[in-house]
Parts: sequence; C-alpha cells; structure tokens
Amino acid sequence: MKFNVLTLFPEMIEDSCKYSILKRAVDAGVISVETVNPRDFTLDKHKKVDDTPYGGGAGMVLMAQPYVDAYESVEKLDNSITVMLSPQGEPLNDKLVNELSSYDQIIMLCGHYEGFDERIRDIISPKEISLGDFVLTGGELPSLCLIDAVSRKIEGTLGKIESADDDSFANGLLEYPHYTKPREYRGLKVPEVLLNGNHKEINEFRAKKSIERTKIKRPDLYKLWLEQNNNS
Amino acid sequence: MKFNVLTLFPEMIEDSCKYSILKRAVDAGVISVETVNPRDFTLDKHKKVDDTPYGGGAGMVLMAQPYVDAYESVEKLDNSITVMLSPQGEPLNDKLVNELSSYDQIIMLCGHYEGFDERIRDIISPKEISLGDFVLTGGELPSLCLIDAVSRKIEGTLGKIESADDDSFANGLLEYPHYTKPREYRGLKVPEVLLNGNHKEINEFRAKKSIERTKIKRPDLYKLWLEQNNNS
Repeated sequence: MKFNVLTLFPEMIEDSCKYSILKRAVDAGVISVETVNPRDFTLDKHKKVDDTPYGGGAGMVLMAQPYVDAYESVEKLDNSITVMLSPQGEPLNDKLVNELSSYDQIIMLCGHYEGFDERIRDIISPKEISLGDFVLTGGELPSLCLIDAVSRKIEGTLGKIESADDDSFANGLLEYPHYTKPREYRGLKVPEVLLNGNHKEINEFRAKKSIERTKIKRPDLYKLWLEQNNNS
Repeated sequence: MKFNVLTLFPEMIEDSCKYSILKRAVDAGVISVETVNPRDFTLDKHKKVDDTPYGGGAGMVLMAQPYVDAYESVEKLDNSITVMLSPQGEPLNDKLVNELSSYDQIIMLCGHYEGFDERIRDIISPKEISLGDFVLTGGELPSLCLIDAVSRKIEGTLGKIESADDDSFANGLLEYPHYTKPREYRGLKVPEVLLNGNHKEINEFRAKKSIERTKIKRPDLYKLWLEQNNNS
C-alpha cells in the first residue's frame, strides 16, 4: 500500500512513521509513506500557500494553485483513491477502513488553518473523510490515524502475536476484557474461568462480557448487533 | 491547561508538539504537555510492560503495575480529569471537547498493542474516550487529537487571525465554502456575492451554503439542527 500525503508539515507525518507498528510495516515494505509539500509548488518568491478569504472573516484560506499542482505531481497507480481529511467528510469507521485497505494507493490532502479554497474540492473531487465531529488544526493527525488503521488491515503489518480479528468492531461488538500476570494485583483477581484451561468456557465468558460491555457502553452498537444477529 | 500523557512512546507525543498551533500554545505557556513512561516504573530488569493474556489469544496485554504506578506518580491538580483513549469509550465530539476544556489538567492513558489489563480500569476509573469506531495501534494519535482539539478552545491558543467560532459544529452545521485569490482559477470563479462588499448578502449566502452542505453531507446533523432551530 502506497500512502502519499500532501501536507505543509511533512516532518509531522515522517516523525510518526518512526514508531511501533508503522515503522515495522514501512521497514518490511508492506507500506510506503511519501509526503509532498504544496509549499514547494508555489510560484511566488515568498512561497505563500494561503491568503485572506473573499467576503471577509477570520483565518487564512489555502490557495488552489499550490495544492492542485502538488496533487498533479503525484504519480497515480491504477487502483488509487484520493482522500481529503476534513470535518465535513464521511466519519471514519471500521467498515470504511476495510474499504480503503482494498486500494493500492491512498493519496491524502491535509488542510491546515481555516480550510481549503473550494476550487480544490471542485477540481480534485476527493472522497472527504472525517475523524469525527470535532475540529483539529490540520489534516495531519487524521491522516496518521487513517494510515495506522488501514495498515493494520494489510497482511504483513501485524506480526503473528498480534491479531486484528479480536479487535473491537471486528464482529460488531466491543472487545472483551483482558487480563495478564499477576493473578492478583492490589486485591483484584483474574476471573477464575480464564485460568482453568477450558476453551469452551473461556470463549463463552468472553462473548458474554463482550455483549454486556457493548450494551452498557455503546447501546447504539448493541442495537445494530442485535438486529443483525436476529436476521442471520 | 496541563496535559499529562502516560505512554510507552513519549517521543511520539513530544515530536508532534513541535509544529504549528500546538507549538505556539506551548511556547506561549497556554498549555503544557508532559509525558510519563510506564516502562520507567517496571520492577524487573527487562523493563517488561506487557505479558500474554490469561485464557489465551493473540496479542500482548499491558500489565497493571507499571501503569498504575506511573499514574500515581503524576501530581494531580484540583480540577483534573483522567481519560483513557480506547475504542470502547464515548466518541469524541465538539461538545465533549468543550467539556474537557473546562478542566485545568487532563491526564491521558495511552494503550498500545492488544489492550490494558482490566484492573487498570478498575483501579483508575478513567473516563474512556474513543476517536471513532475504528482500531489504532495505540492511544498516542488519539491523545494528540484530543490535545489539539481541546487547545483550540482555550483562550490564547488561536491568534487574532484565526477563530474557532466559524468552525464546523460550532453552530451545529458544517462550515460554508471558502475562497481566496485569485478570482478565477482554471475557469472556476469566486461567487460574485463574496466580492461585492455587502455583508448582509455575504452572511446570507454563507448561511445558505452551510445549511445546504450539511443537508447533503450529514443528514443526521441537519436533522438535529432543524429540531433545535424549530424549538428555539
């Protein structure tokens, strides 16, 4: 999977790929992350990427020309999708992450400051994706989240000891509780059933906890899960 | 606002605070971001922070002792909240960001790998917050999103030229389209109304576009906005 990130802060993207599972995926050649800086495509000597909004108002607006030229400089693979990270987009969820992981290339446009000149949307027609109903300074953190979430779905990113199958949402439910050593910590004991080696009982306990927890913490997900389970 | 982040990857948090508006807020003393590494609180010579799950299964589980001890080492202010970043939490949104911005301190627990030993939740009783219904490798990116979103709400973070008032969600709607120079780019023109200097007309145009856009892109938000507007 090839990720190309258009950003005014390329170091922010590159820094984060130095850690943990993303680093491992890059080192193993499972993913590649490249950045393009629209500032390198400006035509004036001050390398200006933004200007004041027509009609007045606070903030600076990202100019179309440097972004469109930067975008057009990226070599596109056949099976490629272009994404704009914006609070106006479709909220990212596990289903959308799965869809995205079927592409060979994801080109991402990160805004910053007040937003994009609308003509960037008109010309590039990206799929707009939002991390949620809140506002961030730029698209860099959402891009990194997207790279992380999508990479986890690609074979070779997670090692044998990890797994995405048991993750929250994989079966429409939140994950069951985990316990590790020691058996007792500050008076709190590991549930007996996890220690008896009976895999049928362990699976039942985990399924029950997973359902209970979803019902309490996320009644909306629980309702959806219930509907799907009754229909199948 | 004081942010304390418990993380196995403190550099990932520190690196991201070197850029843009977060850097400015830190430099201006509006926010401070400190990290604590549970690995520094391990008691064995291998500095082990995780172990295999009781009951079997993939992945490694974060052990209670290093996390609880690291948490207890953080000096707590009176008006403080402790947050665990986890896909099981309440989804982050603009309302929750506003609530969080009223605290003087936010202590954040970042998981990594498969998850936390359940007893960490039992002992610390954090408020669990999720970035959305998808799975990431760790809580570091969600923590950074939370720091960014909350910082924007604190006076002194955004300069005079920026503003959070016009942002998406501030009035329950998505933001209107922005345009900046030039007046025409690749045949696409800035809407005439934004150029005529009539502020009443400009405000009407923007309000109309904001409503239209929300109706198309986020019918769920539009419905909520309509209900609230009919009741007020």
